[in-house]
Amino acid sequence: MPTPAESPFLGACRSLPVDRTPVWFMRQAGRSLPEYRALRGSGSILEAIADPEIAAEVTMQPVRRYGVDAAILFSDIVVPVHAVGFGVDVVPGRGPVMATPFSTTSDLARLPDLDPERHLPYVLDTVDRVVAQLGDTPLIGFCGAPFTVASYLVEGGPSREFTKVKALMHGQPDLWVSLMERLVASSVAFLRAQVAHGATALQVFDSWAGSLSPSEYECFALPATAAIMAATADLGVPRILFGVGTGELLSLMATSGADVVGVDWRVPLDEARRRVGPAVALQGNLDPALTFAPREVLAAGVRRVLDAAGTAPGHIFNLGHGVLPTTDPDALKMVVDLVHAEGRAGVSK
Amino acid sequence: MPTPAESPFLGACRSLPVDRTPVWFMRQAGRSLPEYRALRGSGSILEAIADPEIAAEVTMQPVRRYGVDAAILFSDIVVPVHAVGFGVDVVPGRGPVMATPFSTTSDLARLPDLDPERHLPYVLDTVDRVVAQLGDTPLIGFCGAPFTVASYLVEGGPSREFTKVKALMHGQPDLWVSLMERLVASSVAFLRAQVAHGATALQVFDSWAGSLSPSEYECFALPATAAIMAATADLGVPRILFGVGTGELLSLMATSGADVVGVDWRVPLDEARRRVGPAVALQGNLDPALTFAPREVLAAGVRRVLDAAGTAPGHIFNLGHGVLPTTDPDALKMVVDLVHAEGRAGVSK
Repeated sequence: MPTPAESPFLGACRSLPVDRTPVWFMRQAGRSLPEYRALRGSGSILEAIADPEIAAEVTMQPVRRYGVDAAILFSDIVVPVHAVGFGVDVVPGRGPVMATPFSTTSDLARLPDLDPERHLPYVLDTVDRVVAQLGDTPLIGFCGAPFTVASYLVEGGPSREFTKVKALMHGQPDLWVSLMERLVASSVAFLRAQVAHGATALQVFDSWAGSLSPSEYECFALPATAAIMAATADLGVPRILFGVGTGELLSLMATSGADVVGVDWRVPLDEARRRVGPAVALQGNLDPALTFAPREVLAAGVRRVLDAAGTAPGHIFNLGHGVLPTTDPDALKMVVDLVHAEGRAGVSK
Repeated sequence: MPTPAESPFLGACRSLPVDRTPVWFMRQAGRSLPEYRALRGSGSILEAIADPEIAAEVTMQPVRRYGVDAAILFSDIVVPVHAVGFGVDVVPGRGPVMATPFSTTSDLARLPDLDPERHLPYVLDTVDRVVAQLGDTPLIGFCGAPFTVASYLVEGGPSREFTKVKALMHGQPDLWVSLMERLVASSVAFLRAQVAHGATALQVFDSWAGSLSPSEYECFALPATAAIMAATADLGVPRILFGVGTGELLSLMATSGADVVGVDWRVPLDEARRRVGPAVALQGNLDPALTFAPREVLAAGVRRVLDAAGTAPGHIFNLGHGVLPTTDPDALKMVVDLVHAEGRAGVSK
């Protein structure tokens, strides 16, 4: 076997042998950590993200506490559309809410070109600060996938049914393509800027892709995501594509050009491997709800994920969705230690 | 080919040839119909369900308006636990909320044996009234599956994450089994009573089963559902098992003993057929969001479902989830007419 990569996380993203199974948690920065709540106080999350000192510290907190193998920027997928003035607020307990939802061609003008250095200097400042502190630990930059961002823009806020965005994509396909093009352009600019400032991996969150049928995903969502992957391939950093409820979409997601496909807890990783083929790595997929179960149940759940991941290279341990706000940090610490002790995927020791 | 069954709906449930593809809609009774809102006024939905005159009329309204091939009782899956005094309210815009959630062994006493004639005389009176009006149109009785009902009891209300119910099933498996046994017993008693009063088909709503991994479903949810199917097999009426986000669970659901498995819009019916095998009928699976799209998009969606259903017997057209409250009834009427005109599954004419 070749020598393990220096970073277990980056090595696993490349399906290379590693010293240990890497682990990090979606939403590890912020949310459930008491040191985060103490730091942030009661202000808006968008204000906290816009303060590089706070955002960098929140990004670092889980790295220190858990010893995870990657940091992920403390930010939100609506930050770029907020920064160009679309009119977004993030309402506590509800999520991103648009002052005026996207509905017609004239709304395209509300999504001007994103210049990250001009519109998002605070995020890039945060990246600089985090990279300076992280040492060998990789930083994951990210953006929302065009479909998922569009779902917020069109629905006006979080949705369960996605009726407006589906009506738009089916009923006004030309407008939909234009909207996707706008969001692809801003996503690519933002991801490239994060890498220019030192991010060494990228994740595209298509969180709500699982609301689409396979044919809808292939026709209306995947092309935009694939365009982002194509336009970031030259950066030389691994790109992760994640969504929830994507069991029917995994084989399509594997064609996007992503190096890693995230899997939620509904599809065991051995079955996910059959669907995505051998060429991409897998990230996941512990049910976040199990962090609320007794510790022996949680440990058994971790071991089931590790067993299903098998011994071939290419597994990054993660939850199947983000850390829930009321999660006990000690449960996550136990998960990290257990994964490091017992993970075998591509582990050459 | 044999002679088509007299009822297209009952014939299709038995995977027999039919005169036309049958169609009905989950949540067709109530919700989106203006004649329902006019009738019900502003009272609680539990009060409307408890009034047989109102409940029977609401059950009949969609049969008259749409010409659907089956009626489904206007009721709610929490009605039986409400009737035995568990302490449930249905909060508009939110759903069922428990005064005190289920958490310990002592809570089992809050789920005494259900005697439908004593606890739910109004529901059975409604069944009587509906059957007297329906003529040849079948009436579907229903209950919630034990897992889905338990998720409300344990979480205390609607949930997205199901952390408490998963912690209970994993952490206190003996208590979980006892809770399932209580809910199986009341479900069986309630379903049998509905059939005794004239319901000619049954549906078990395991709406939230899709939140479970396949191994969780097999271990913690399927046994209770299978027990209900076994205890209603002698009734001679078809039993439908439905859930949302169940792509990974379809093959397990097909082992429950159900005659029909409901499929949401995420899995095309030809793929669902591969997963469930030839022995059960399929119900579904138009995305309810498409009822908000332009009519030609809606028609194309209906035709995609009919194409995927193919020509073999055993397809009941339905939405992939319930009718949404803001759905235009004219869109549903168009769906019914199109399915009747163009459906080919088992159609012998």
